Amino acid sequence: MGDTHIHSEDELVGTFLAPLAAGFPGALGLRDDCAVLAPTPGCELVLKTDPVVAGVHFFADDDAADIAWKALAVNLSDLAAKGATPRIYLMSLSLPEAPERTWMARFAEGLGAAQRAFGIHLAGGDTDRTPGHFSIAITVIGEVPMGGMVRRAAAQVGDVLYVSGTLGDAALGLALKLDGALAARLGLSADEAAYALGRYLRPQPRIALAEALRTHARAAMDLSDGLMKDLGRMCRASGVGAQAVATELPLSAAMRRALAAEPARIRDVIAAGDDYEILAAIPPTACSAFEAAARLSGVAVARIGEITSAPEVHVLDARGEPLAPERSGWDHFQPR
Amino acid sequence: MGDTHIHSEDELVGTFLAPLAAGFPGALGLRDDCAVLAPTPGCELVLKTDPVVAGVHFFADDDAADIAWKALAVNLSDLAAKGATPRIYLMSLSLPEAPERTWMARFAEGLGAAQRAFGIHLAGGDTDRTPGHFSIAITVIGEVPMGGMVRRAAAQVGDVLYVSGTLGDAALGLALKLDGALAARLGLSADEAAYALGRYLRPQPRIALAEALRTHARAAMDLSDGLMKDLGRMCRASGVGAQAVATELPLSAAMRRALAAEPARIRDVIAAGDDYEILAAIPPTACSAFEAAARLSGVAVARIGEITSAPEVHVLDARGEPLAPERSGWDHFQPR
Repeated sequence: MGDTHIHSEDELVGTFLAPLAAGFPGALGLRDDCAVLAPTPGCELVLKTDPVVAGVHFFADDDAADIAWKALAVNLSDLAAKGATPRIYLMSLSLPEAPERTWMARFAEGLGAAQRAFGIHLAGGDTDRTPGHFSIAITVIGEVPMGGMVRRAAAQVGDVLYVSGTLGDAALGLALKLDGALAARLGLSADEAAYALGRYLRPQPRIALAEALRTHARAAMDLSDGLMKDLGRMCRASGVGAQAVATELPLSAAMRRALAAEPARIRDVIAAGDDYEILAAIPPTACSAFEAAARLSGVAVARIGEITSAPEVHVLDARGEPLAPERSGWDHFQPR
Repeated sequence: MGDTHIHSEDELVGTFLAPLAAGFPGALGLRDDCAVLAPTPGCELVLKTDPVVAGVHFFADDDAADIAWKALAVNLSDLAAKGATPRIYLMSLSLPEAPERTWMARFAEGLGAAQRAFGIHLAGGDTDRTPGHFSIAITVIGEVPMGGMVRRAAAQVGDVLYVSGTLGDAALGLALKLDGALAARLGLSADEAAYALGRYLRPQPRIALAEALRTHARAAMDLSDGLMKDLGRMCRASGVGAQAVATELPLSAAMRRALAAEPARIRDVIAAGDDYEILAAIPPTACSAFEAAARLSGVAVARIGEITSAPEVHVLDARGEPLAPERSGWDHFQPR
């Protein structure tokens, strides 16, 4: 192993990770066994852990900055959906070999960029060699005013369903990454292809929307496993059903062009994971205030349907026919 | 895949994990995206994450209950050293395949046993398939009265060094596991061999000692990478040195017998990891009160040396000669 590789945990932590903790005094410079966190008075903490693994959530040869961004962003997305303000995160790195210094510097750059974009600091963690694949387990901690966390299980009949951003782009980006000829086949411009790929590589947690959700949403969750599956989860948890309309689902220019060429890609819009947009149920009386707050936040939101009393969850096509069964999202353990 | 295997994340969470969260309302039955935690008024939170990986920290064919216990215990050990009371943990499981139900039930049993022993509840987590090795990333959260966390970097010249329990047993247990003929060669009784193996498989976080540490210790940390390395870390962080005396290091009956047969195993006592005992620096004026509090807690503690002004860290043998270099503990990235 040459001088290009990191030689000790102390170097890895001191040189590359400690600067990411400089903004949070409770991290104690990553030189203690634990971090210490005092919540803001009147607030409680919102907690989430969601690991990412090479070969499942990213490719081992992706840019280390993108890998790092995604590992943090997928967790921040949950905080956004719950109406929480990010505070700190802890990170466990499992690395198959001592990383190169240039790789580790890129990785730290990606984390730093996400930290600055979403206002969060590294508070602690651990680094291990693994005989397996590279993986990153991040635990994020945010804050809400006491009792203010937006729940998943609280949707009520008649609530209006909204999603943020656009759907299906991450699946399109992944498909483009796997098939170099796809962009041409779909007639995508270079900008459109780059946009879709960016949506896959650098999900944008909708932290800017958190306050609007906390103020107006009855229920919310982030879309990590696809609209159908996650909407089904919200409805089962809430004891309700839902009806969404495919023609109302917000689409990027790239996805619109892809659908024009291959209409079957509508499946990616309704059932593919990795979008990290927000699904929210808003009481009808709060819709205009929510839309106004969303506009101020700079995050686009679109009405896609409503909560119903039927236990089923349907996405209807232009003729009013159900498009897909409920359980069509991603499940790590379901036989496929 | 037959009916013996878990078929969905919903089954895994609902059947095996949700019962472990029943004691903590903020877990929301593991049916929301995030958990919510309100610290006890007047307290702040102490946070730690330390993952364990098959082939590094345990063997994939270890009893699932032991694997689960260890994954939680190694994190609780840090809380104990910081004087914290355990509250909740989040857990990310990365599994190479859908687990068998019987395996998962044993795994949940091990977690449940550790939860009951140390007063902590599951609050959330995530489960993924991985192309790599089985790994468990746990983040524990405990509490201390505001400002009460015991630091690593606070040892002062003249402080008396203590360790809890006995040292080297886990390394002996691992050696016994790897070499079926070793117990006979060392002349260990079946009970002694089982004791050492148990110390490796089921580390005992010294949560009972947390209050005594919070009240009396100037500095403390847990011993996960071996006495020499971790004592070196405490001293570097505190800007001091230390001198410990090998003949004062507390030994189990099993280790005493092993040393009688193979004196070189003293290296496991001073430099091997996985003991998860506590190292503490106690001001001389507080020693008798600390010892009394430790007695009440039921955790044995032993004086092993003192903090010095020299930057070096030494463990002296019976003749007063230094036994080993400072940096002889476990480092995942150091060339070996």
